[in-house]
Amino acid sequence: METPLTYAIIGTGAIGGYYGALFHRSGKEVHFLLHSDYEHVRRQGLRVFSVKGDFLLPQVNAYGRAEDLPRCDVAVVALKATANAALPGILPSVLNEKGIVLLLQNGFGQEGLIAPIPGVKTILSGLCFICSAKTAPGTIRHQDYGSLNLSQYTPDQTPGGITPIMRQIAADFALAGIPVDLNPDLIDARWRKLVWNVPFSGLTTLFGIDTAEVLNAEPLQILARDLMLEVVAGAAAFERNIPESFVDKMMSDTLQMRPYFPSMKLDFDAGKAMELDAMYKEPLAAVALRGKRLTRMEMLYEELSFLQDKNITYLSDWEV
Amino acid sequence: METPLTYAIIGTGAIGGYYGALFHRSGKEVHFLLHSDYEHVRRQGLRVFSVKGDFLLPQVNAYGRAEDLPRCDVAVVALKATANAALPGILPSVLNEKGIVLLLQNGFGQEGLIAPIPGVKTILSGLCFICSAKTAPGTIRHQDYGSLNLSQYTPDQTPGGITPIMRQIAADFALAGIPVDLNPDLIDARWRKLVWNVPFSGLTTLFGIDTAEVLNAEPLQILARDLMLEVVAGAAAFERNIPESFVDKMMSDTLQMRPYFPSMKLDFDAGKAMELDAMYKEPLAAVALRGKRLTRMEMLYEELSFLQDKNITYLSDWEV
Repeated sequence: METPLTYAIIGTGAIGGYYGALFHRSGKEVHFLLHSDYEHVRRQGLRVFSVKGDFLLPQVNAYGRAEDLPRCDVAVVALKATANAALPGILPSVLNEKGIVLLLQNGFGQEGLIAPIPGVKTILSGLCFICSAKTAPGTIRHQDYGSLNLSQYTPDQTPGGITPIMRQIAADFALAGIPVDLNPDLIDARWRKLVWNVPFSGLTTLFGIDTAEVLNAEPLQILARDLMLEVVAGAAAFERNIPESFVDKMMSDTLQMRPYFPSMKLDFDAGKAMELDAMYKEPLAAVALRGKRLTRMEMLYEELSFLQDKNITYLSDWEV
Repeated sequence: METPLTYAIIGTGAIGGYYGALFHRSGKEVHFLLHSDYEHVRRQGLRVFSVKGDFLLPQVNAYGRAEDLPRCDVAVVALKATANAALPGILPSVLNEKGIVLLLQNGFGQEGLIAPIPGVKTILSGLCFICSAKTAPGTIRHQDYGSLNLSQYTPDQTPGGITPIMRQIAADFALAGIPVDLNPDLIDARWRKLVWNVPFSGLTTLFGIDTAEVLNAEPLQILARDLMLEVVAGAAAFERNIPESFVDKMMSDTLQMRPYFPSMKLDFDAGKAMELDAMYKEPLAAVALRGKRLTRMEMLYEELSFLQDKNITYLSDWEV
């Protein structure tokens, strides 16, 4: 039997807090790095309100500084991509000799920024299909879904295959109640995630509406689908073929989903930096390097950038 | 010497009210058709606040019903394009045997809808470069500019040349203090007007900002210019060549202009129907017939259509 993995949760928010709490509950050794919530969580633990059942963890391993954590097998990076500049100050003191990072972030190209950080040896990327939010200090509200799509990063963007460490981490997620899809191709997985995120994160933020309102308004429904098809064209520039049936499925899945405000919309409303770089700028730049332009996505990025610039109150849990 | 032309002003608002008042002041025979403002204007006349000097016309020829006007040589149609469905009920009783319509409207393709109305023989189209608004009943506030670009409509969209009636009407405008450019090619003129209107009407409305705010925000400045270049590509589909220097001029002219809310933004704020068909839908459809798509303009149209649909309070002076 394999030695159990130990986990450090970097960023105990909507995603890291939820998965970390489930891991803790399932008996894993989990250490939580916190920033603004540190005192609260140290004293009162973590509370999860979830469609799958509420629970309280009165006592968790909480730390306010990276250097106080014990070195762990896996550093689960669940910060917003906008806070990744903090990682070179965190990962080297948190990782042990295994040097495994599990990156749970939207977007594109972050792995390439994390790979050179000292101590990082293997990067797995998990794409989270989850509706959750941190609604108060140490308090996570899990509204829907929760599954993970797991791939291994390769510097040359070829498919990384399905590795033993992917299987072991997936087993830990399964034990914690989270279904995991293992995906041999991170690039394909990322573009598939963008198929949903590009239209729905952007349009809900631009118009201050939820996912159902996007789909119920004919002009926006048409636009959302056209944006999805542009993302499919972006994937094609990377020789990844996403069938149009996947677009149809994303549209119909979203129609059946409970009306939802994506995290970008919540960030915007809270005056926080939106993940525009990871979700728009970087994929657009990557596609441009391959000689293609995604016009609608570019326009949406420009519109959101304008809103971001106006939305001057920039707050982050992980300012550096 | 030519017999002086008589004028019927159909739609005494920001445009018709301003030009009509100037014509009246310069000694022309002018008859004003009014709707909601009829009683007010009949009793108190028209008032113009203008950067070129304020003036009051205590008594003008005001009518509440089309059939009460005397037949005139020229019917100046200055309704919003959204109210054009009222014209078949107005023009036949207002036009005399000359059957001249001077259409002062944004957009594309309206002439083709007006041409078949009984009594219409000649259509001139005047594109107005003017910042003005009706701010109260019978009250026009003229903020800037005022020149007219005049062309003659032809059913086959070939250049109509510069005709004697164009010269005569231009002389009347000149006498009233309004400079007129005579343009032999209406299609070219319309597309040139769209170069400005498509980005600035749309983006000011979408974001609730003025022209200066569009230009001062880098992402929107880029987007405005890209939208202009799309309109230039639309003109090219009609074999009209608009040089890129014209785009540069529109951008720099707007930078020098006093910050301005285009009429589309004012209509939206007032809960009125926006001229989306004339300014976006019809040009897009015309271009699509020639096998071209203008992606950003299409997306802006979809976004504005969504706002329009949400903005349910539809009020019009000329509901039919």
